[in-house]
Formats: sequence, C-alpha cells, structure tokens
Amino acid sequence: MTRFATGVSALRSSEIRDLMSLAASPDIISFSGGMPGNELFPLEMIDQIYQSLSEKEKQVAMQYGPTNGQPALLESLAHYLEKKGLPVGKNRLLITTGSLQAINILAKAFVDPGDPVLVESPSFIGALSAFRSYEANLTAIPLRSDGLDIAALKTALDSGGPKPKFLYFAPNFHNPAGIIYTEAVKRQMIELLSGLDIPLIEDDVYSDLYFHEDDLPKMRTIKAIDPEGIDVCLTGSFSKILGPGLRLGWMLVPEHIYGKCELIKQSMDACSPSFSQVIADKFIRSGAIYTYTGQVRLEYKKRGLAMIEALEKHLPGYVSFEKPRGGFYIWLHLPEGADSTLILKKAIERGVVFVTGKTFDPAGVKNNCIRVSYCNTAPDVIRRGIPLVAEAIREICG
Amino acid sequence: MTRFATGVSALRSSEIRDLMSLAASPDIISFSGGMPGNELFPLEMIDQIYQSLSEKEKQVAMQYGPTNGQPALLESLAHYLEKKGLPVGKNRLLITTGSLQAINILAKAFVDPGDPVLVESPSFIGALSAFRSYEANLTAIPLRSDGLDIAALKTALDSGGPKPKFLYFAPNFHNPAGIIYTEAVKRQMIELLSGLDIPLIEDDVYSDLYFHEDDLPKMRTIKAIDPEGIDVCLTGSFSKILGPGLRLGWMLVPEHIYGKCELIKQSMDACSPSFSQVIADKFIRSGAIYTYTGQVRLEYKKRGLAMIEALEKHLPGYVSFEKPRGGFYIWLHLPEGADSTLILKKAIERGVVFVTGKTFDPAGVKNNCIRVSYCNTAPDVIRRGIPLVAEAIREICG
Repeated sequence: MTRFATGVSALRSSEIRDLMSLAASPDIISFSGGMPGNELFPLEMIDQIYQSLSEKEKQVAMQYGPTNGQPALLESLAHYLEKKGLPVGKNRLLITTGSLQAINILAKAFVDPGDPVLVESPSFIGALSAFRSYEANLTAIPLRSDGLDIAALKTALDSGGPKPKFLYFAPNFHNPAGIIYTEAVKRQMIELLSGLDIPLIEDDVYSDLYFHEDDLPKMRTIKAIDPEGIDVCLTGSFSKILGPGLRLGWMLVPEHIYGKCELIKQSMDACSPSFSQVIADKFIRSGAIYTYTGQVRLEYKKRGLAMIEALEKHLPGYVSFEKPRGGFYIWLHLPEGADSTLILKKAIERGVVFVTGKTFDPAGVKNNCIRVSYCNTAPDVIRRGIPLVAEAIREICG
Repeated sequence: MTRFATGVSALRSSEIRDLMSLAASPDIISFSGGMPGNELFPLEMIDQIYQSLSEKEKQVAMQYGPTNGQPALLESLAHYLEKKGLPVGKNRLLITTGSLQAINILAKAFVDPGDPVLVESPSFIGALSAFRSYEANLTAIPLRSDGLDIAALKTALDSGGPKPKFLYFAPNFHNPAGIIYTEAVKRQMIELLSGLDIPLIEDDVYSDLYFHEDDLPKMRTIKAIDPEGIDVCLTGSFSKILGPGLRLGWMLVPEHIYGKCELIKQSMDACSPSFSQVIADKFIRSGAIYTYTGQVRLEYKKRGLAMIEALEKHLPGYVSFEKPRGGFYIWLHLPEGADSTLILKKAIERGVVFVTGKTFDPAGVKNNCIRVSYCNTAPDVIRRGIPLVAEAIREICG
C-alpha cells in the first residue's frame, strides 16, 4: 500500500483531460480547449528571432539562468508592463514556468492544510487544482456579470471564521465566465479588503485580447490601481500573446512576498526555460509583440462575434449568456437544475464538445452552465458547431 | 504582517546563490557551478534541428502539450532509456521541467509535514531544498566511497520511529561526493529495503558522462536491476547531455505512483516546455545525442583528469579525495573541525571560488569538506586555480 501525502491521496483525475483527448480527434468540433489556434502562432517572427541570435545568445538559451529570470527578459518585460500602467518599480518581477506556476507558488507560500482561501465561482480550474493540492479550504464567492458579488464577499469576510489566506480572482475576460470586472466592483473590493491583511492574487492573462479598444480604461487591474493597504500579487502569461509551448509566465508582487516565492521556485524547477526566455525577450524588444497581438486580437474578435451570432440564432430562449468583449470564452447559463454533463454526452454524439459547468465550480457540484470557447475554431466551423450544441441542450432541457 | 504558510516562513536564502553570482564575475576562477561549459553546447546540432522543423512541428512547439509529455519525445526517450537497460515497459514515463521538478513532485506526492525521509550526507542541495519545502524531517545516512553506509542505513531502519516516506540517493558520479555506488552496496540496499514499503528515489543525471566505458556494468541503477518488492522512482535529466536551458527532465516510476505525480504536475505548470521537447525529441531521434555525449564525455574527462593531477600536486597531505570516474565534481575531505567557509573567504581573496561542505549537509552543519567542480572550466584554468585553493586551505588549516 503506497503511503502518499494526505492531500495527494484525495487528488482525482479530472473530466477535462478525457475531453481534451476527445477534442484532439479531427472529426470532433471542439469548443472545449483554452489554447490559441495552432494556425495563429507567429512562426515567421520566431524564425526571424531564431536566425538573429548570436552564438552568445544561443549559449544563454541552453544554460541555466537566474531563478528569477533572464536579466534581459526581466528588463524588457518590465518595460512592457510599465506601459500598461503597472507599478513595476515598486514591486518585484519573477519569471515563472507559465502563469499556473506563479499561482501554484503563491498558493504554496500562503497555504497550510485547511487554511481558508477565497475564490470566485466559477473559477479557473488550474488555480483551483493548485489550491486543492495544498489542501486549501475553498470558499466560493459567486461571480456576477460585473465581477465578484460584493454582498457575498462582505458576508464571507464578516463570517467570524479564520481569516482567508488570500482572494484569487481574474478581472478581465474571465475564464470561464467571459466577463470584465467593472471599476465600481474593483473599488468596492479595495474598500472592503483594505487593511485586512488578505492578499489578492489577480490573474490577468487575457487582457491583451480585447475586441474594443474603448474598454481599456475599465480593464485597469487592481495592481495598476495600486491601492494602499492591500498586497496585490499580479500573475500574467506569454501563453495567449506568444505561445503556451514556451511555458512562460510571471508574477509582479511586493518585495516582502517576492523573497519567499523565489525560494519556492528555486526548489521547484531552479529556473524557467532559458531558450523560451531568450525568444520572449526578443519578441518584446523587437516590437513584434505589438504587431502580433494586434493581429490575433482581430482574429479572436472575428471568432467571438461569429459565436455570439450563432448562439443568438440557435440557442433556446431559456439559455442566457454575457457577450464577451475579449478573451476566449462564453459562459452559457441554463435553467436551474439542468445537467450539462448529460448535455455534453448528447453533444458528443453529434460531434461537438465543450466543458461542463461543474468543472469550474469550486465545490464541483453546480452544473447548469456550459463553457464554449471560440479561440481555437474558425468562424465557419463555429457556425456549424453551435447548432449542434443547441440541439443537445434542447434534447435534454426541452 | 504577512501570514506565510508554516514551512515557508522558515525558508532561508542559501549561500550558493551569492556564490553563483560571484562565479559569474569574469575575473574569478569558478569551481563552484554545476552547469556545463557554455562552449560545450551543441549549437550547430540545435541549428540543424531547428532548420529541419516542419510548420506543423513548429506549431506543436508553440502549443500546450499533454501533461505527461509530447508523445514523440515519450517514444524516443523510452527507446533511449530501454537501450540503457531500464524497464520502461513495466513503468510510466513523465516528462518534467528539469529533474528537480521530478524530485519535487515525488516529494509532494509522499511528504506530509514532519514525515521522515532518508537522504545521503552529503546530498544534492536541490533535492534537500525540495524536501525541506514540504517540511520533511531529514534523516541523513553517511556516504562512503562505495555508496551509502549500510550499517547506518540499517540502524536508521531499525530505529523504531515512524517509517521513512522514501530514501533519496544518487548512485552515479554523485553530486557532490563524485563517487559511484558499488554493486555490493546496491545489493545490500535492495536486501534491506525489500518489502518495507519505502520507495527509492534514484537520481541518475550524470551517468552518461563516464570517463571509462569499463565502468558501465557497475553503474547499473537499482531501477535497471528492477528488484521485486521495492518501488523505485528513477529521475533523469537532459541538463547534462543537451542543455539545462531547455528545462527538461523525467521520472520513470511504477504505474500506481505515476497517476498522483501526473496530477501534481498538472497543477504545477500544466506541461513542460513544448519547444524544448520538440528539440530534445529530434536530438535523440537523429542520433545526435550519441555523437554529442561521446564528445563532451571526452572533454569532461580531460577536465577531470587535469583537476585530479593539479589536486595531487598542490593539496596538503591531510586533504583526501576520491578520484572521480565521471560526472562534474570532486569532494575534498579536510581534517575534522576544518571550516570550509573560512577557507572560501581566503580563496575569494585569491580569485577562486568553490562550494562549502555544509551546503550539502542535510543538517547544514558539517563543514570540513569542499566541492570543486571541473565541468565549466578549461584544463589550463584548472591548473591555475587549484594552487590558489590549496593556498587558501593551507592558510586556514596550516
């Protein structure tokens, strides 16, 4: 009998992995993944970058680097984030192996088994599984179309139980909910949390993929607002703006949190891939990042609008959703009691997949929602696939 | 007051990081690092591999991959390991972000705070810090020139305390001790541990870098011996046979351990860098790995022999060491009570650095040893640097 650690014994394989393998089948239309389309990667830019590397740069790419990141990338990324209005100089930047590692490190830094943490419902499954792996006790705060439900947050904070170790949230183009937090909600969060010694983990990986430039002011992160009296740990990623295969993300955190995170990272994988860091640095430094995000932004907008149109045309009236203004996802609300797992089974028979609601529920129960993603599917395929989803919904819900 | 998790509050920065930055100074001769020489990386082979990639392969390189690794690399690596006599078919292979991540994942799978684990003294600092980060209670078994001190292992196993969660050891070209475990010691370990339900973590990252082909039979890992009644978790790495900047390692473990490890990896960084995996796969598949390891093996042998010769010529008679037969390191034993930190200070004044003994002591105390590495220094520089180390030793120890 293998004697695993306590929390690990309880870890169970998730439904989503099986779906991902299904989604890889060429005959299935997949609205399930959160990966960029293969055809959208900036391969020519990468070629140019690779050809431009000096022998010395190639050596750096093959060698260990500092745990916190390659100095060149730390510099170029700092400029990139400063341009977005982030208080880089007052904080420390740590390059991580994808933003999931940044979230995992922060969870390890703060969570002892049984510690309460606050999360959104629904929430990013990667973060939920990282928190669960440290045996955090998840308290879910419902998400509304404008952000966290402030009354529910207040109730949770006033509950009199042990103080949560942090609040994890994603303000822009939420995965899976597709929403943007309003300025008003962010201000209320700041007011409620100021001085409470509950750090925020603010996950902002989709904000470059907006459909409407006018939205930029309201997408300002709490980290950029830089409120007094709250430790904000911002996490970000190259996965959606360059390529997830590089496995590069970052955290921007206050100095007194940074030190512990760097030590944890040192014991996890010593440093993030140097090869990827050399490429990412050149991608920023050359300005290619701006050209590229400008291009994919338009493509994702095309796909998002095609999906909105198809959903409006085909969905039964009892399904509602918030129209996305960027990012990768649309979150369909079905009537109370609807079971998206049953719907998924019917959808698979028709040749289309999505992700069930309960996957994103911190309690793993609430299942009357569906996440459909448009990031990895061309508009014409979206137009063929959405009617099949609608049929599956009607077959189960009437 | 930031409320960190229990174990994390105790994490402290290590001496080695400051040394690493010192070692980067061009005026200092460094015997401190464990990285391959920059000039030894197979840059031309990497160029050829990159040029040969199809558009589809480049897309794979930029995309998320399966958590356990790219199918192509899993296949080519399996062949590579089978050729070394490892029982790949009876186990599962998991690609990790460096072998340190493999060790970290295994630690997370097995260790609850306070759990005892058995380690060598001296031992690899990366593993020690991973174990400490999960609040393992380290029990050190002394290392002799032929491997673990079997009598001490027996005493530890018979102590009557709670059963250790695993035994971590490195059988070939040990870091820092530079030794090879003998067949006899491995057989005695197997005999002692069989049926005890104490898994082995067998760390084998240097075994391709032997000086003498005759040594190959005695370097057979316990994983390759494949004993009944012991779960052996083998960890390995591309860092020393291709380049650490790719951040690629692996674990080869029994199925019933694999599942938990894959789930932990999924919550840590989702998957290892695809870009690196595409390159590593081609590096194996093309046979370049055999050409390259053949070349660097000769170069490291040249460096190792130069260092042995210089040490024999210059060291005072009271310093002893085991001559390395491969790998990167030589471990100098100084008289009882000698303080290698004082020696290091004198050495730095003379323009040379190494790593102090206590860095590798699980208790962080025993300091009458010195690790000098020859991997990253050309023979003529070794011949200039070793006399300076000898002078510093004489100045402190007489």
